[in-house]
Amino acid sequence: MASPINPIAIHVTEAPPRTKLTNYPEPFASRIAGREKHPLGDLFGLTNFGVNLTRLAPHAISALRHAHSKQDEFIYILKGNPTLQTDEGRTQLSPGMCAGFKAGTGNAHNLINETSEEVLYLEIGDRTPGDEGTYPDDDIQALLVEGKWQFTHKDGTPY
Amino acid sequence: MASPINPIAIHVTEAPPRTKLTNYPEPFASRIAGREKHPLGDLFGLTNFGVNLTRLAPHAISALRHAHSKQDEFIYILKGNPTLQTDEGRTQLSPGMCAGFKAGTGNAHNLINETSEEVLYLEIGDRTPGDEGTYPDDDIQALLVEGKWQFTHKDGTPY
Repeated sequence: MASPINPIAIHVTEAPPRTKLTNYPEPFASRIAGREKHPLGDLFGLTNFGVNLTRLAPHAISALRHAHSKQDEFIYILKGNPTLQTDEGRTQLSPGMCAGFKAGTGNAHNLINETSEEVLYLEIGDRTPGDEGTYPDDDIQALLVEGKWQFTHKDGTPY
Repeated sequence: MASPINPIAIHVTEAPPRTKLTNYPEPFASRIAGREKHPLGDLFGLTNFGVNLTRLAPHAISALRHAHSKQDEFIYILKGNPTLQTDEGRTQLSPGMCAGFKAGTGNAHNLINETSEEVLYLEIGDRTPGDEGTYPDDDIQALLVEGKWQFTHKDGTPY
């Protein structure tokens, strides 16, 4: 469905999906097939932070497990039972639960949908310049340059 | 219920209410009796933006109708049917609907619960320094100084 121009309010199910599925290079891009992001904050012209409605198909993951240097993140579960992975281990989530990921702690997180049902959640993150993403489980690192993520191997060589 | 220390995740109904009900001076403070905010982002140590679970009792309002100079705001309705008031007029909201309020537009907003049922929503706002609040319907203005709101009459005299 086309999004209205400058809406006053919308039902989140009316928000169109983001056309670019991921910024990850291969082989990582293929690992997040099954994740669909619907930008919500952008529809209202918000720039200081982003809000997405994100769907995880059965067995999809939200992202590579990662930590941000400057960006705080927050999630609120609307539907389904994703598994949150952090440095502390695995935590089962359910609708009405929320979690926050403080920038700069180095504690890496992602969500996995290990169920046969769809997962739906809201995700919020600010857009602090100079943010970096670190990935303890994978040979990739990320730097936010002028609003765009640049990915390299951990030794700095490009993908 | 006491909040856990550094939780990995919580159900939002476990989040304790904010002890200070409002920063407004009288006679405005009394007008938002019936509004209860439960900070969520703070529980996880987030500082770049705030996330609250907010309850509006029947006939309560979310805030004086206001606009921010620097803070973007976003709401997501979890329960109930609040009325959103903006410069464009009144919009009826329902669960699953969201709205965003871009900083610097001057378009002022608030929510009113005109029903006999509780309203529950998530609100997100960033914490950009130097933010100012303007109130088209009331003799009050606000300035964020070192993370605290300072309120004066529109002619600058203090309350």
